[in-house]
Amino acid sequence: MPGAVSSTLINGQAADSLPLSDRALAYGDGLFETMRVVAGGVPLWSRHLRRLRRGCQALRLDLPAVELGAEIEAMALRLGDGVIKLVLSRGSGPRGYAIPSETQPTRILYALPAPTYPLAHAEEGVQLFPCQTRLAQQPLLAGIKHLNRLEQVLARSEWQCDQYAEGLVCDQLGQPVECTMSNLFLRLAEGWVTPELTQCGVQGVMRDLLIEAAAQAGDPVQVRPVGFPELLTAHEVMCCNTLFGVWPVVQLEDRRWAVGPHTRRMQSLAKQAYL
Amino acid sequence: MPGAVSSTLINGQAADSLPLSDRALAYGDGLFETMRVVAGGVPLWSRHLRRLRRGCQALRLDLPAVELGAEIEAMALRLGDGVIKLVLSRGSGPRGYAIPSETQPTRILYALPAPTYPLAHAEEGVQLFPCQTRLAQQPLLAGIKHLNRLEQVLARSEWQCDQYAEGLVCDQLGQPVECTMSNLFLRLAEGWVTPELTQCGVQGVMRDLLIEAAAQAGDPVQVRPVGFPELLTAHEVMCCNTLFGVWPVVQLEDRRWAVGPHTRRMQSLAKQAYL
Repeated sequence: MPGAVSSTLINGQAADSLPLSDRALAYGDGLFETMRVVAGGVPLWSRHLRRLRRGCQALRLDLPAVELGAEIEAMALRLGDGVIKLVLSRGSGPRGYAIPSETQPTRILYALPAPTYPLAHAEEGVQLFPCQTRLAQQPLLAGIKHLNRLEQVLARSEWQCDQYAEGLVCDQLGQPVECTMSNLFLRLAEGWVTPELTQCGVQGVMRDLLIEAAAQAGDPVQVRPVGFPELLTAHEVMCCNTLFGVWPVVQLEDRRWAVGPHTRRMQSLAKQAYL
Repeated sequence: MPGAVSSTLINGQAADSLPLSDRALAYGDGLFETMRVVAGGVPLWSRHLRRLRRGCQALRLDLPAVELGAEIEAMALRLGDGVIKLVLSRGSGPRGYAIPSETQPTRILYALPAPTYPLAHAEEGVQLFPCQTRLAQQPLLAGIKHLNRLEQVLARSEWQCDQYAEGLVCDQLGQPVECTMSNLFLRLAEGWVTPELTQCGVQGVMRDLLIEAAAQAGDPVQVRPVGFPELLTAHEVMCCNTLFGVWPVVQLEDRRWAVGPHTRRMQSLAKQAYL
């Protein structure tokens, strides 16, 4: 890949492998963040840190915020442009679910090239695959970006062809929740709506940013449960994450949407976050 | 630890660390098994293999059965008595949920000493902690022993004191499902009952063995949903796994049970499996 810089750190030291006693491997016992690096900085770091803090509370994990801040700052400076992925694991421990009393969290950082999504995804919009995999309802883990991601792996494995840039994922009741790697927004007659994520789903950093930015721009986003028929009646649909910003959704099965002005406005709000 | 033999293999080679690109670390994308080793063999290997096969089907993972069989056989011979833990990961891959087309599963084996549970647990019975953590309902993952175990980690973290050897875990409806590391059996007037695990829970190898052995002994186990009030009306309660066999349950909050003859019988059926 042109300009690819790949390097990995564990607890601030260059390393390319993890002790087999780590609980992220054993139980997915930890959190992760995927952060856009622009011109040697991580513009949304404070928001990623906020989500990490929520995740650490949910998992009763100590957050090594000072070390992470310093390590990510230095890595971003070296990387210039690209992606930093952080895995924050509970750390090493003996076999068994019980959390060892002296465990120290393990900080794993990956410096990666920027993803190479086709420009057409943002300009002309994307088609969603209708995933059959449904998300389980677990309020204790909803919203946070933990490492138990088999549901996303299964949902993403349902299609292979490039025709679909993303997949729509519903909960056990068949209500739309999010896409496999991004959040979902619907433009209804009443304004923007995005599904509530108190039972399942990942509360994206870009989702939070757009909710705030749209409110400041006088066009607030409602956060509430969304029905599948409601999705089909939407005037515009979009998905968002911190890596690609906003993609208009132009097709889901037989339903087609045009790329509308409200989505274009959200795209420009997303872009401003990286200036 | 006396007689502790700890060694680890990755794909048959001695190794103590895992590449940071492994998907077990990234997403908990894989399965595990914890197997009792007795006199240089794994008496329940064929049952563990059967569960692995089911897990591989659910996760669309290739099962390297021949390699695993050979590696586990050799490791058990060296170990003599103890525990072998297997982690079968999807293998290495780039960032992203999509399963890479050329991925090879990673086989990770741990040779561990036998657990040192107090003998009194089996003889006099154990007290269950009533966990508040409830299991999410996800039929796509129910029953298999995958690596997404944050629910078990959270449930097990609810108590620290030795007074409780295990914890009772219910589903989102408040119905008893299992314990944090073992399965649950109730002796009712109608006979043995164990909760159905089609929505959540792990289908234990010892649970399957006891269901078969009890049926052969003319005392079949019903597999069906169990209500919490029903648990309280049970004459006897027990939990089981392949490491400790059967523990009588003698207390859950205010409810106390005696260790009854039906549980003693199950204990002897479990012991026969290791002869």
